[in-house]
Amino acid sequence: MTATVSQSYLPNSGSAYARRYSEVRAQSATLTARLSPEDQQVQSMPDVSPTKWHLGHTTWFFETFILRPQRPDYRVFDSSFNYLFNSYYEAVGPRQLRAERGLITRPAQDEVLAYRAHVDAALADFLDELTAGELEDLRYLLELGLHHEQQHQELILMDIKHVLSRNPFGPSYRKKEPAAVYGTHALHWFDVPGGVYRIGHADDGHFTFDNEMPAHEVVLGDFALASRCVTNGEYLEFVEDGGYKRAEFWHSDGWALINREGWRAPLYWQPDKNGNWAEFTFAGVCPLYHDAPVCHVSFYEAAAYAAWAGTRLPTEAEWEVAARHFEVARRPRAGANQMASGYLRPIPAGEADPEAPQGMLGDVWEWTESAYSPYPGFQAAPGAVGEYNGKFMINQMVLRGASCATAPGHTRITYRNFFYPHQRWPFAGFRLAA
Amino acid sequence: MTATVSQSYLPNSGSAYARRYSEVRAQSATLTARLSPEDQQVQSMPDVSPTKWHLGHTTWFFETFILRPQRPDYRVFDSSFNYLFNSYYEAVGPRQLRAERGLITRPAQDEVLAYRAHVDAALADFLDELTAGELEDLRYLLELGLHHEQQHQELILMDIKHVLSRNPFGPSYRKKEPAAVYGTHALHWFDVPGGVYRIGHADDGHFTFDNEMPAHEVVLGDFALASRCVTNGEYLEFVEDGGYKRAEFWHSDGWALINREGWRAPLYWQPDKNGNWAEFTFAGVCPLYHDAPVCHVSFYEAAAYAAWAGTRLPTEAEWEVAARHFEVARRPRAGANQMASGYLRPIPAGEADPEAPQGMLGDVWEWTESAYSPYPGFQAAPGAVGEYNGKFMINQMVLRGASCATAPGHTRITYRNFFYPHQRWPFAGFRLAA
Amino acid sequence: MTATVSQSYLPNSGSAYARRYSEVRAQSATLTARLSPEDQQVQSMPDVSPTKWHLGHTTWFFETFILRPQRPDYRVFDSSFNYLFNSYYEAVGPRQLRAERGLITRPAQDEVLAYRAHVDAALADFLDELTAGELEDLRYLLELGLHHEQQHQELILMDIKHVLSRNPFGPSYRKKEPAAVYGTHALHWFDVPGGVYRIGHADDGHFTFDNEMPAHEVVLGDFALASRCVTNGEYLEFVEDGGYKRAEFWHSDGWALINREGWRAPLYWQPDKNGNWAEFTFAGVCPLYHDAPVCHVSFYEAAAYAAWAGTRLPTEAEWEVAARHFEVARRPRAGANQMASGYLRPIPAGEADPEAPQGMLGDVWEWTESAYSPYPGFQAAPGAVGEYNGKFMINQMVLRGASCATAPGHTRITYRNFFYPHQRWPFAGFRLAA
Amino acid sequence: MTATVSQSYLPNSGSAYARRYSEVRAQSATLTARLSPEDQQVQSMPDVSPTKWHLGHTTWFFETFILRPQRPDYRVFDSSFNYLFNSYYEAVGPRQLRAERGLITRPAQDEVLAYRAHVDAALADFLDELTAGELEDLRYLLELGLHHEQQHQELILMDIKHVLSRNPFGPSYRKKEPAAVYGTHALHWFDVPGGVYRIGHADDGHFTFDNEMPAHEVVLGDFALASRCVTNGEYLEFVEDGGYKRAEFWHSDGWALINREGWRAPLYWQPDKNGNWAEFTFAGVCPLYHDAPVCHVSFYEAAAYAAWAGTRLPTEAEWEVAARHFEVARRPRAGANQMASGYLRPIPAGEADPEAPQGMLGDVWEWTESAYSPYPGFQAAPGAVGEYNGKFMINQMVLRGASCATAPGHTRITYRNFFYPHQRWPFAGFRLAA
Repeated sequence: MTATVSQSYLPNSGSAYARRYSEVRAQSATLTARLSPEDQQVQSMPDVSPTKWHLGHTTWFFETFILRPQRPDYRVFDSSFNYLFNSYYEAVGPRQLRAERGLITRPAQDEVLAYRAHVDAALADFLDELTAGELEDLRYLLELGLHHEQQHQELILMDIKHVLSRNPFGPSYRKKEPAAVYGTHALHWFDVPGGVYRIGHADDGHFTFDNEMPAHEVVLGDFALASRCVTNGEYLEFVEDGGYKRAEFWHSDGWALINREGWRAPLYWQPDKNGNWAEFTFAGVCPLYHDAPVCHVSFYEAAAYAAWAGTRLPTEAEWEVAARHFEVARRPRAGANQMASGYLRPIPAGEADPEAPQGMLGDVWEWTESAYSPYPGFQAAPGAVGEYNGKFMINQMVLRGASCATAPGHTRITYRNFFYPHQRWPFAGFRLAA
Repeated sequence: MTATVSQSYLPNSGSAYARRYSEVRAQSATLTARLSPEDQQVQSMPDVSPTKWHLGHTTWFFETFILRPQRPDYRVFDSSFNYLFNSYYEAVGPRQLRAERGLITRPAQDEVLAYRAHVDAALADFLDELTAGELEDLRYLLELGLHHEQQHQELILMDIKHVLSRNPFGPSYRKKEPAAVYGTHALHWFDVPGGVYRIGHADDGHFTFDNEMPAHEVVLGDFALASRCVTNGEYLEFVEDGGYKRAEFWHSDGWALINREGWRAPLYWQPDKNGNWAEFTFAGVCPLYHDAPVCHVSFYEAAAYAAWAGTRLPTEAEWEVAARHFEVARRPRAGANQMASGYLRPIPAGEADPEAPQGMLGDVWEWTESAYSPYPGFQAAPGAVGEYNGKFMINQMVLRGASCATAPGHTRITYRNFFYPHQRWPFAGFRLAA
Repeated sequence: MTATVSQSYLPNSGSAYARRYSEVRAQSATLTARLSPEDQQVQSMPDVSPTKWHLGHTTWFFETFILRPQRPDYRVFDSSFNYLFNSYYEAVGPRQLRAERGLITRPAQDEVLAYRAHVDAALADFLDELTAGELEDLRYLLELGLHHEQQHQELILMDIKHVLSRNPFGPSYRKKEPAAVYGTHALHWFDVPGGVYRIGHADDGHFTFDNEMPAHEVVLGDFALASRCVTNGEYLEFVEDGGYKRAEFWHSDGWALINREGWRAPLYWQPDKNGNWAEFTFAGVCPLYHDAPVCHVSFYEAAAYAAWAGTRLPTEAEWEVAARHFEVARRPRAGANQMASGYLRPIPAGEADPEAPQGMLGDVWEWTESAYSPYPGFQAAPGAVGEYNGKFMINQMVLRGASCATAPGHTRITYRNFFYPHQRWPFAGFRLAA
Repeated sequence: MTATVSQSYLPNSGSAYARRYSEVRAQSATLTARLSPEDQQVQSMPDVSPTKWHLGHTTWFFETFILRPQRPDYRVFDSSFNYLFNSYYEAVGPRQLRAERGLITRPAQDEVLAYRAHVDAALADFLDELTAGELEDLRYLLELGLHHEQQHQELILMDIKHVLSRNPFGPSYRKKEPAAVYGTHALHWFDVPGGVYRIGHADDGHFTFDNEMPAHEVVLGDFALASRCVTNGEYLEFVEDGGYKRAEFWHSDGWALINREGWRAPLYWQPDKNGNWAEFTFAGVCPLYHDAPVCHVSFYEAAAYAAWAGTRLPTEAEWEVAARHFEVARRPRAGANQMASGYLRPIPAGEADPEAPQGMLGDVWEWTESAYSPYPGFQAAPGAVGEYNGKFMINQMVLRGASCATAPGHTRITYRNFFYPHQRWPFAGFRLAA
């Protein structure tokens, strides 16, 4: 997030960059095309935002941080949108209460789409006229806008899944899921020797969020990482062993929570007519897929399972060191990335790979044992975009990897995702360490 | 609500009745035609239901209580709708939680309209084939269905007004209100002598809800009723005299409420840029209309104003006796009924009428000092429709009259409307007694 | 509450009045003597006040409304007590939040007793010096203070019963209850003919609260009143018949409440080790006393029982007319008044009395179907004591009669007690009407 | 917490150990002697426990974990106390809800003191008869019981300060505080070179809680630590600079919290009649002591101050490494330990010490930037006492050092105290790092 970020791997002409911009933005339209105005309106809990709001907010980001400062002649589409579509930037002024985003019936969906078209056209014009030097100066903000768009693509999927699940008859987002042909394998362990390791994002010109920097050293002991994530089938054993009724496995806060809320299984699990577990998916309610990674669990549930299994979750440093050690970024497995290939649910790990743990960059975000704290020497970016990460560095836990709903091109082994330990609507599962 | 209700004033052939049915139902379509799918989706507070839900629920009423029992060959449109559109009939089975009606994105608006068309067609067929005798037997249920539809027409207006008001930029339901040419007059009093009076709905064959029966005697002392409702201008004097800051005028529960909620004026009043009071209306935010009846106040506010003014509210018996005494049902004033003539806000009372109080059957529902209790000898109707009124006879206050949003043909001087004393989203104002 | 109240039945010399004062005040000391400082400190729910607070508050009443205005040389015991012990008199200034009375650890119990002694001594001096004329002028306020003290004696018992019940091992207020030798009788009905009746407190010089006035006429139809209150045994039949699981008997608000709170029986009922019902009493947990009136039920439960039994509750007018008709005030039954004779729980009605319904002025307050509203022509007393009743006339229901915890000399057939329909900690039961 | 903990520095005969036991236990009695039964009864918020409960609970710990397992002939004082005085040990059975500890009026204070005497006598007998070998085996549990008692001594002070503060007239715990003669000095910095350091408690036979182990290596960069904690005077500058009104300094959760709760200053600060800040202390309300460390601030407030000052809080590793580096454990300053010397409020740091930072083991617990997580290789102790620490390792932040309310002999530089980031009733302040 500094002036030295060159990002020379990116398109270096405005018109080439315009193509990149257009591709990323189009993905949002693709994901939401099948949703009705009603589907896009609803906020099913305060954590969730309406689809329509996501589409407006990501557009507002480009309007506010690129077009308005850079183009004096830019015509603002609707001045009220600054209030409606600001998410949390205190420096940009007052805004719609988060929990009341679902009350905004006007603008309607078609007006939001017109807003997107207006901003996209203005940005295409702007990029076309940009010199290479001007592009260089704006690259970080442009990339931030696109990565931000990609984050909201995953949020759109998380949120609409929750919205649809609250419809009493579990309607589907799409007719059916593509068939997955993988089974899974018996879990085994990969050893990593202890030592002093470097983690975090090197200042190498590639895009990164500020929270991944600076790179720094950590000391680790010897540890082992599981060859794959815990599966639905394994998690079911925990459930059937009374896992949700035995305090000894739970953090005190987690135990209070599951009893207060009556949790007895992951978020979208539900018993079918015969008393078997089924799960709500984008294709409606389906039988539980035993070989697939368990998903939509909170940190508390992940940690309780680990305690029941006599192991633990990895720290984020361990996860990243292992990912580097086994070069997982160079080993995309067949089938991934899911969003690109059409899978919007985690799929089984398949046969054992003797070389490296599987699924570290797809399927489910993996809860770690690490609280979301600033790296030593962390500096938030200056200005309003400095509110992007730093002010959330309390009360949340780090998740690593990526999920079946993460946008293509949005994965990095240094990526630090974060959620509160009680949140289950992300595509979150976990992997054991020992 | 007994077998002796003949309702001979109603159409006595099926096909004639089909026209009546069609006219009432069409009014719902007219009221909602200008609302987008998004507008019709939102539930802005638990008391409010989405427009789409109202359209479905009133249709469900005819399907459930007429078509299903009467027509063995009737094809149910969608069996899941029994769950979605049951409001509170415990006897008809489980149902969507009231506070979660806004989560139902499926069926979409167009499916609900198709549901209406399906039921309307089946009912038209059914009515066409009905003999006069069969019609006679079903008249009470049919009329109940239509009066129920009319009640929901007013609820649709109450609810959408609240929904639109929660949009931060106060969008309008329609471009503008028709111009009203009335001023008001200095309040004067109409005396009614004390004595034993009969109130309630006589068992005379005209439609009535069960809660208006049986007719019975009450003893009243001498009293006087105001010539018109309290106006915005008068209420503003109360506000400016510190009415919301002086405990001595308030019920204890009301005082706690207005301080907890920070109420300082009626629901839709808001200061404009210059610090003058404006009000949110169906035509957007307008300057406060001083001569019009104050509207969207709670019982607590009505009672506090009365205490400040050194008077009181009438009881429901006083209201009804006065309405009979001055034959207000025979004196519709020009301009009313508002829904028919296009006014969707209360309008000023105009010049003094020496013969009778004005506006008792229009403009605003009038809070009374009477708790909503069963009349002596009250019997709820048998079966599920018996849940229509009786089970709500606690904690609520009676309002009398009708409002600018009440459907044409839905007013009676025996009509007992009821709301909780804190509710302000009805079109409710008040008239003083002494 | 007017100047014409002569109350000539009361002591007409200051020193004689001083004895009356001292007797009433001593009863408070007797009731609380067995309670530890800890028992007297706790507020187990917002409705409950600590015993210590009651003892201070009733004393503050005499200090504030008699001594301070009448005795310029009176030395205020502690000026901070005006804040601590004001209950709800807005006109007397700010005060401790009701829900935080239990936080007041200072003054300790012994200081509160010293406060009582200080005020009692000052009042004794004051009364001794009073001329008959001066006494006449002050009688209403003095009597109001004593009746207020008596009301708080009942509140002390209601509240400490709740406090002790929240101790997990159900400690007792006293070792045991006196043995009651009564059985009960099969319920029969007393008919009262319809007509125009006068109810309310005649302005006859005897003490009354302002809410019992003015006397006024009502029209009643023929009705019948039950010979006794519903018993624990009868109520148990309702429970065992699924009364708490069948929506058809309940008001909508009541049904929501019992499900939200998980109510399945009256407040202090609890299953014993063998699955039989027991009840928490002042003598600890005892087997359920089947013949005694059911007690500690809410209005909702009373009304649901009546619906289950196919009858209803009486209105307050019916209750009072019947009490007058059968002259129940002249027929105190043996055993009553309980507080005087040592029974602090409702006792069985005994054998049938062919002349009059039994237990109308003792055992349990009887819920009526009447909302607590002002009588026609009601005027609150002027000044701060005018806040005594009027501002509570909303959302509450009237109870008639008296209970086993009502102070001797504090019963009248015109007495209007009132509670919210959900409250169960009063000694409240009910009697059927038809 | 392993079998190898020899703790040979402790008394090695039972009778000598009995003296240690008696001294620690007596300190609890001394601290509470001035509190009335009422003071000891109240729970002013769910975080707070009544004094009486603390006295019972610490006694229950010895009874449950020492006497009952070790002495078959031990007579349990009252079997109901296992329910009442269990804090959170799921393995020991059900227990009184934490938020309802204030409802326990029975046992009264004198019974709790009798319980303490009973257990103390039994334990004295037991210790007297113990062989050195038996003592060796039990030492860890005995020490755990005493350290637990000392923790509750600090909790007693935290809690009673909160209870007394909620009394509207701010009563005092004692007449006055001893005079403190210290001023403070201009803040300067102590540099610590980066490197690989060892932190945590070495397994050296001295007592430690399980959460301080195992010792392990960390990598630190160069850093500097402030010579003293931030003072009231410095914090006041932040307040007066609009610190509580400027979002840019706050974590998002903290900003939401201070606005929801209306926080504008540390917990016990309050304006006096002249608008100057005063603070509630154990000696009542006193003028703000500008030179003393600020106390009773939440983590959010500490972090916001640091952001305002352009610095940060130390991590717990930095704090411990600095404490070791400057050998602060060997440099007790005059005046400390406060509890021993009678100061129950933080006192100024005094003149600058060129050798080491001041006040690291007294005055206030110091918030760090570190979330409370398990050390690498952490193992909870087996059995019920394993619930002592591990299950709380989520959502809380580590505080280091000790406070003016920490018991003598209860400080260690490896000590990890922890609270939720919103909690302010601990004696918590902070020290800056850079």
